[in-house]
Amino acid sequence: MAKAIDGIRLEPGETIDWIILDRPEAANAFSGKMLERFSEVLADRRAAGAPVLGIRGAGKGFGAGMDLGQYNAQGSAMDDVLRLSSYVERWMAIWRHPKPVIIAVHGYCIGVAAQLASFADILIVSETATISEPTIPIGGGFIAPVWADQVGGRRAKEFAFLPGNRIDGKIAVEWGWANAAVPEGQLVVCAEALAGRMAQIPAAVLTMKKRSINRAMEAAGFSAGVGAVAESDAILHLEPEVRAIRDRLRTDGLKPVVQSFAGPSSQDIFRKYGDGTTIES
Amino acid sequence: MAKAIDGIRLEPGETIDWIILDRPEAANAFSGKMLERFSEVLADRRAAGAPVLGIRGAGKGFGAGMDLGQYNAQGSAMDDVLRLSSYVERWMAIWRHPKPVIIAVHGYCIGVAAQLASFADILIVSETATISEPTIPIGGGFIAPVWADQVGGRRAKEFAFLPGNRIDGKIAVEWGWANAAVPEGQLVVCAEALAGRMAQIPAAVLTMKKRSINRAMEAAGFSAGVGAVAESDAILHLEPEVRAIRDRLRTDGLKPVVQSFAGPSSQDIFRKYGDGTTIES
Amino acid sequence: MAKAIDGIRLEPGETIDWIILDRPEAANAFSGKMLERFSEVLADRRAAGAPVLGIRGAGKGFGAGMDLGQYNAQGSAMDDVLRLSSYVERWMAIWRHPKPVIIAVHGYCIGVAAQLASFADILIVSETATISEPTIPIGGGFIAPVWADQVGGRRAKEFAFLPGNRIDGKIAVEWGWANAAVPEGQLVVCAEALAGRMAQIPAAVLTMKKRSINRAMEAAGFSAGVGAVAESDAILHLEPEVRAIRDRLRTDGLKPVVQSFAGPSSQDIFRKYGDGTTIES
Amino acid sequence: MAKAIDGIRLEPGETIDWIILDRPEAANAFSGKMLERFSEVLADRRAAGAPVLGIRGAGKGFGAGMDLGQYNAQGSAMDDVLRLSSYVERWMAIWRHPKPVIIAVHGYCIGVAAQLASFADILIVSETATISEPTIPIGGGFIAPVWADQVGGRRAKEFAFLPGNRIDGKIAVEWGWANAAVPEGQLVVCAEALAGRMAQIPAAVLTMKKRSINRAMEAAGFSAGVGAVAESDAILHLEPEVRAIRDRLRTDGLKPVVQSFAGPSSQDIFRKYGDGTTIES
Amino acid sequence: MAKAIDGIRLEPGETIDWIILDRPEAANAFSGKMLERFSEVLADRRAAGAPVLGIRGAGKGFGAGMDLGQYNAQGSAMDDVLRLSSYVERWMAIWRHPKPVIIAVHGYCIGVAAQLASFADILIVSETATISEPTIPIGGGFIAPVWADQVGGRRAKEFAFLPGNRIDGKIAVEWGWANAAVPEGQLVVCAEALAGRMAQIPAAVLTMKKRSINRAMEAAGFSAGVGAVAESDAILHLEPEVRAIRDRLRTDGLKPVVQSFAGPSSQDIFRKYGDGTTIES
Amino acid sequence: MAKAIDGIRLEPGETIDWIILDRPEAANAFSGKMLERFSEVLADRRAAGAPVLGIRGAGKGFGAGMDLGQYNAQGSAMDDVLRLSSYVERWMAIWRHPKPVIIAVHGYCIGVAAQLASFADILIVSETATISEPTIPIGGGFIAPVWADQVGGRRAKEFAFLPGNRIDGKIAVEWGWANAAVPEGQLVVCAEALAGRMAQIPAAVLTMKKRSINRAMEAAGFSAGVGAVAESDAILHLEPEVRAIRDRLRTDGLKPVVQSFAGPSSQDIFRKYGDGTTIES
Repeated sequence: MAKAIDGIRLEPGETIDWIILDRPEAANAFSGKMLERFSEVLADRRAAGAPVLGIRGAGKGFGAGMDLGQYNAQGSAMDDVLRLSSYVERWMAIWRHPKPVIIAVHGYCIGVAAQLASFADILIVSETATISEPTIPIGGGFIAPVWADQVGGRRAKEFAFLPGNRIDGKIAVEWGWANAAVPEGQLVVCAEALAGRMAQIPAAVLTMKKRSINRAMEAAGFSAGVGAVAESDAILHLEPEVRAIRDRLRTDGLKPVVQSFAGPSSQDIFRKYGDGTTIES
Repeated sequence: MAKAIDGIRLEPGETIDWIILDRPEAANAFSGKMLERFSEVLADRRAAGAPVLGIRGAGKGFGAGMDLGQYNAQGSAMDDVLRLSSYVERWMAIWRHPKPVIIAVHGYCIGVAAQLASFADILIVSETATISEPTIPIGGGFIAPVWADQVGGRRAKEFAFLPGNRIDGKIAVEWGWANAAVPEGQLVVCAEALAGRMAQIPAAVLTMKKRSINRAMEAAGFSAGVGAVAESDAILHLEPEVRAIRDRLRTDGLKPVVQSFAGPSSQDIFRKYGDGTTIES
Repeated sequence: MAKAIDGIRLEPGETIDWIILDRPEAANAFSGKMLERFSEVLADRRAAGAPVLGIRGAGKGFGAGMDLGQYNAQGSAMDDVLRLSSYVERWMAIWRHPKPVIIAVHGYCIGVAAQLASFADILIVSETATISEPTIPIGGGFIAPVWADQVGGRRAKEFAFLPGNRIDGKIAVEWGWANAAVPEGQLVVCAEALAGRMAQIPAAVLTMKKRSINRAMEAAGFSAGVGAVAESDAILHLEPEVRAIRDRLRTDGLKPVVQSFAGPSSQDIFRKYGDGTTIES
Repeated sequence: MAKAIDGIRLEPGETIDWIILDRPEAANAFSGKMLERFSEVLADRRAAGAPVLGIRGAGKGFGAGMDLGQYNAQGSAMDDVLRLSSYVERWMAIWRHPKPVIIAVHGYCIGVAAQLASFADILIVSETATISEPTIPIGGGFIAPVWADQVGGRRAKEFAFLPGNRIDGKIAVEWGWANAAVPEGQLVVCAEALAGRMAQIPAAVLTMKKRSINRAMEAAGFSAGVGAVAESDAILHLEPEVRAIRDRLRTDGLKPVVQSFAGPSSQDIFRKYGDGTTIES
Repeated sequence: MAKAIDGIRLEPGETIDWIILDRPEAANAFSGKMLERFSEVLADRRAAGAPVLGIRGAGKGFGAGMDLGQYNAQGSAMDDVLRLSSYVERWMAIWRHPKPVIIAVHGYCIGVAAQLASFADILIVSETATISEPTIPIGGGFIAPVWADQVGGRRAKEFAFLPGNRIDGKIAVEWGWANAAVPEGQLVVCAEALAGRMAQIPAAVLTMKKRSINRAMEAAGFSAGVGAVAESDAILHLEPEVRAIRDRLRTDGLKPVVQSFAGPSSQDIFRKYGDGTTIES
Repeated sequence: MAKAIDGIRLEPGETIDWIILDRPEAANAFSGKMLERFSEVLADRRAAGAPVLGIRGAGKGFGAGMDLGQYNAQGSAMDDVLRLSSYVERWMAIWRHPKPVIIAVHGYCIGVAAQLASFADILIVSETATISEPTIPIGGGFIAPVWADQVGGRRAKEFAFLPGNRIDGKIAVEWGWANAAVPEGQLVVCAEALAGRMAQIPAAVLTMKKRSINRAMEAAGFSAGVGAVAESDAILHLEPEVRAIRDRLRTDGLKPVVQSFAGPSSQDIFRKYGDGTTIES
């Protein structure tokens, strides 16, 4: 097994090459180096390797979002805008990649990891995956707008408006965010079966099919829709109430702050009132 | 309990302020004064009150649409266009409101009431709610286009093309029009539980999340899509066949005319032929 | 029963006129003459006949796509672009038709037939219908982009990326491609029940409702989305690997080539890994 | 010289085929038959004839708009919408034509003739041409919206908001509506010189260049922009003040009614106040 | 002559009612009260008064922008976003107004005043008017984006990228921002001559013409284009370098800070190098 | 003076860093290595160097387009699509660059060089610059669509439809393609004077102003408009008539082929017939 370099491991295959988020000490959260490496490997696979590209996480989940250290509290608002923009630019390389990209999500998939996953061509999730907003609402307007073209504005708002809101794999398919949900143990083999079938189509045909559908999605506003998310998020980082939460994080530590925002998800609430199922808050 | 003024009652709360359509003598149909009052209360809540705004109906249903007296048969076509446009402008104030707006729909929700509900940020319905086009097809092209970005063009057409067509709460969720359907008795408490969780997010963060998702939806054509519905509807009001129906209404009264257009909904028909369930026509 | 002329049969009715694809010797595949006749009958129904228009296939399925003879291997790339464009132009006449158009799909619905069906106002399918991409991947980027506004980009890609990929009627409804799925024996009667209800609405009202929803869909990118599919497909027809497959078709015949691309559909794969159901490959 | 059939004359050439509006008894105003013939000849030139297509008027001007008899005062509003829509559909055949279309405008170019000219690929005008709105303001919202993408919204409004407003050929070029203005005697020879150069490019290359630029214009809203002009115009035809003007036309005749709306154009007014030039009103 | 109330004076006329910015002590800069009054008078003219609406400034210029006191340095970033958004919302009432709105600009027209003027239906300027960005670059991204659909992206950038950049009335017409430039003494009488001609068209026809052209402009992205300008500007207000300039303003006073940013405009530079004309810096 | 590496020379300055196309042996035509180097230097300037970025050509002109060797006649159509797409992707890095980019064009500016120049934020040209389509029409649909949002569809078509069509610097400004035209000797100093003024604005403010105007342009279809140009061009490369021209190039050499397509530009023709000026053909 190849070793991870800067938290990214490449696992080449015959029909699918896997780019694996593999930074166990940080629950696969992206560091700056890891982002760089991710982009390099992605670019490197444009002309080399298997006909299909896969992205998944190693360990207990897909990814925990962005390394907290990435946010530079000393930086200016514009530094923040450019930093946030650069994430979207990196994910757009998936969108523009000549190969079809399958993303396989299991376990936790939080914040920026859920944003990244939205750029997949094909998205498969484990039934027990938990796709979530960050528990602590110190940002906003960065993830859900990217979802809006996939799940509709109303569900994007539902997802975004509760602290730490989350959906499981089955809801992700019902909402149209993911193509399919399978048991966690079947996730990789399922993706590979799909890739095997896709690889029977000549590579150029796959590329053109992807370009052609992308174009239809851009006509429906895909690119324009993601254009101002960085600005929105950067503004919130400067909001007094958001700074106050950051201060509490520094003084009290993570646990009590997370605790203060914990609670049922929107779908938990709908289930509870919909059919009487008891939920833990 | 506060008294309704011009058919609108404000019920302030800690996490959610409810604007209640409360004009029992007319099944909550909007009169001109009621529309004015609705807009005033909505504007008043921009800077004051609870962090979340709710809209619901009092009594047996959410709303029966527009007061028949609102249509001025003597007015010109352009008067009609401006009148119809003014409704959409009023609902757009929900869209542009800095707070998240939850709309809770129970019982009947007809015509313009179904148009209003489409502008909710979060939309919860009772399972037994009946969302419907007016039974008598004397207008058209005014409600369903607003739905198209939420349920797709094909279902918007299905909804619009049968006289008095209707869906219940469960179908509304399947179609992606509503976020959730719960038993009628749980509707308000469910909305309030949701609002309670939303209120844990700083108000500025909620505002920005809403603005950011709205922008993605506008990039996907939201505003442009609602731009010509007034013209379409005004033209139909002048159509000889439509005028003939109005004449029958005047001479024969409501009942026989409604009777002549009654029949199964599209979903009734699909169920009947889909699985053999008998339906009443 | 009227006789088919050039593969198209008109079956007039009181509330619905059926245009029937009826070319049994070719599984209803379109020939050049059949396309011409289809457009003529469609145009002829603008001012005459029943208030609703229906399109269905005679025999075992809706249609097998385009007659292979239609592709002129000797023609230039631009000939190919213009030929492919002309198909989309023909289907756009359904979109612009003043009457609501119900398309009823049963049995096989392959390639260009699945493209045509996407332009229906109301689309009803039999539960056992099989909507599929061509088994042999010698084109691409022509059908799925037209689906993208209806099923979302991710499902459009899933559909397009496997050779001969296919969905049945129930999945078509889940995906929002079709309005309803009924047993095959009920398909025509169900469409006619729907048409009966629609015909109660004055014709002018139906026309305006259709125009008004179409306009909302165009604001969401409908027309722009279908604008470059001809170019994409024409390029692939010239691809060396695609030409190689055509050569194999000429030398080996259809059967072994089809065999070499056969395999489970994406939904088959998801079912297999999702719940252990055994599938035949 | 070929004879005109139903007001349309075809003058074939080596590098350019001219479609000539030639109905001298009505100042080239379109009758129903003339529209039909125009569309037929246009369609006929898709696969036959010279590589470039030209459209011009015979006699003293390009065209006086629509034959008054085309408006059916007895018809319903929807009849009117469909009639008006059909004009735009006819001009769209210029837009979709595989060949480049040069339109050469001289003399008067009024109302619907000015709408038609907006669909040219290349538009050449004589310096003394007068492009104008109808003098009698009994319609509206039908011509200028089609201009908006070419001259900008502000100039489209300037053009539309004065009764019988008009610009000459030089202003048409300044505004970007026309490519060039030349002396009237040079108009045809100039268009033919241009066509001669264009004909040096292989036909397929010209077709693709046109398609490719059209697509960019559609991405900028071209098609969506012309989508509701028929509805707008039909509504105005029903306006009491517009009906009153029609009544005056019937009782008083054309001359006094035209006289009551006569006056300087917007550009006349700007010149008068801009530099002291005296204008006749 | 009516007295100004809160800096807004209404001068009713037969064919045009003038809303006059009249706050001489502040060079017509908008205060909060003045904005409120502006919106009230605008709303009041929807159903009352002359058929055309005009907006102009009293005294030496059209307007100096926003009162500095309007920026609340103590407020949060989101307060700033909502404040900035509210300006655009106010100007949108011009866009949605049923009457045509002529704006007449003379003298200085700075910052937010130049943004307001961009929402005119018809825009007339004096030849010597100076339309400019604020001299001190403490904001950005708020004015020029609104211009982009009128002057093109490249000129919008030219205008925005130099501190205190400015164009005169003649360039404003060349760029297509204004309809016409006339000597300052002729500005009002020219607007009134135009209004006189416009008033000959029935009011309903004018309303519909405006709606119809607006719709074409919205299809070309008008509304979406102005959607994120508030966010962009608010971020810059928080930028360290921008705060430093504000500090210098507080400590050094306006004059030296303005001096430090003074210099030729882009058009001055182009003239200097284009033809050797000497310019003062 | 720094040496050019792979045809690209970086000339750093205080307010502007110049990226200079400097490959004199090939009239600054892009080779593959030169493209790579161009992108590297562009990326390198994101975080380093002067606040403004400039791009110009060394020697007699800006650039002659793409090195003929770049077209791989043996490659497949999809290779061609990806190659052509990669050019647009490279220029998009100018669009997304955080700094304002001034492009200064003198002398010849042919084909892909004219495409590159269209992505400038500010574009200055020498009065005698010649911006042109390739003389030999072996491609198409690749350059002019990118111009359409800047010069309008009609002028984009005029430019594209004549072999080797060309405009000079003054026309480029009239059309709105360039911001200004100055004598060639003043070009660099003019750009530097502009950059000097721009550099007075804090860098973050410039970045945000650029992002904000870009977003307005994307709402107007900028990105979507350039989405299919690669496909269009690739198809033409395969056209029999285009291949025939290539064959003639191989057998006869460049000169006679160029000669066979030589002739006046569209503006030459308009001048000739417009005012009697004699032109050489």
